[in-house]
Amino acid sequence: MIKLYGHRFSPPSNKVEMCINLLGLEYEFVFVDLLNGQQRTSDFLSITSFGKVPVLVDGNFKLSESNAIIKYLCKKSKSDLYPSDLEKQAEVDMWCDFIAQHLTMQAYLKVMFNKMVAPRIGIEPDPRSIKEGYEFIAKFLTLIEEKLNKAKYLAGDKITIADISLLATVDPSEMIEVNLKTYPKLTAWRDNLKSQDFYQKVHKFYGESMMAKK
Amino acid sequence: MIKLYGHRFSPPSNKVEMCINLLGLEYEFVFVDLLNGQQRTSDFLSITSFGKVPVLVDGNFKLSESNAIIKYLCKKSKSDLYPSDLEKQAEVDMWCDFIAQHLTMQAYLKVMFNKMVAPRIGIEPDPRSIKEGYEFIAKFLTLIEEKLNKAKYLAGDKITIADISLLATVDPSEMIEVNLKTYPKLTAWRDNLKSQDFYQKVHKFYGESMMAKK
Repeated sequence: MIKLYGHRFSPPSNKVEMCINLLGLEYEFVFVDLLNGQQRTSDFLSITSFGKVPVLVDGNFKLSESNAIIKYLCKKSKSDLYPSDLEKQAEVDMWCDFIAQHLTMQAYLKVMFNKMVAPRIGIEPDPRSIKEGYEFIAKFLTLIEEKLNKAKYLAGDKITIADISLLATVDPSEMIEVNLKTYPKLTAWRDNLKSQDFYQKVHKFYGESMMAKK
Repeated sequence: MIKLYGHRFSPPSNKVEMCINLLGLEYEFVFVDLLNGQQRTSDFLSITSFGKVPVLVDGNFKLSESNAIIKYLCKKSKSDLYPSDLEKQAEVDMWCDFIAQHLTMQAYLKVMFNKMVAPRIGIEPDPRSIKEGYEFIAKFLTLIEEKLNKAKYLAGDKITIADISLLATVDPSEMIEVNLKTYPKLTAWRDNLKSQDFYQKVHKFYGESMMAKK
């Protein structure tokens, strides 16, 4: 059985777990205690030199980076969540990369790290980074709202891993006071996905589960 | 013929151009004047809603995000630069994502934006962001040095797009005073790739070409 090393505080970890559930795969979830530095222990670094969650272990094969993991799982399962058509797959790649590099790294992560993580690990929050994060969130969600005004899902009329990526990324919105109600198409898209089993099995309410030990 | 919209200041744009040259494809390079805001004009936004370079135009198909573009081009060209084997491809995906999200967004971009771009567009540089950027650069390059101590290329004994990603990402090292000589394996790997035609065709010296109009 595949093993997922993760933490339910981590949107990338949740992204992989949602994808595993959507694919209907059996898996073992291995909790990594990020807030107490387990990711820096030699045991964990022997699984991944990156020192980050999520990590997938599938037999002898170990893989880091959430998007690489979900693409691997979809290809192995021959799932349309990651379409095999050349142009369609490229479009899904594009959205996954945009969400990971821009909506996550330039936007949500800046706010989330400074507001939620930094105070818990003794780091002074950075007001400029928080401000930039909120500005990028507004800019990128507006762009995504325009896309969801034209199509049911990010890459067209069917759900793909680009949607799973977005769903996990916007999970902390309420916790960091981003009002998604100002993006009605995004809210409708999200409400639909959040009601489904693959999401409910990972967590029913993000804020409630995030600080729990397991 | 394919068109690449880019700017030779942009490592992601250079990454795509290096890949196109390595694949031996004919292309037209369309200069986008980033320092004067051409990426925010309605003409450019009609090509990509992201308002970023690079963009690939291949007939009616338009694609943003550098990693999505190079994967598309390699698959279309059936090139081993992006291996088709499931696990090998996943490993390449992992390195591309790690380089894009961590080495670029958390590390090089922070220093490069604040030291090179911000002063030219009237934004006050952020000393904390610069400091964090340098810390992440040292952390991530150490990890990459360890990998290149065990294998000739990032994903094994053959060059892949993961190497092209890394090569373009570390291009600004001298300009931002990152001394790569402290990473001897990385330096040897880089010297080898920089001497090759696909790199020389894009630019011989990064710093010299970066502020040129075309």
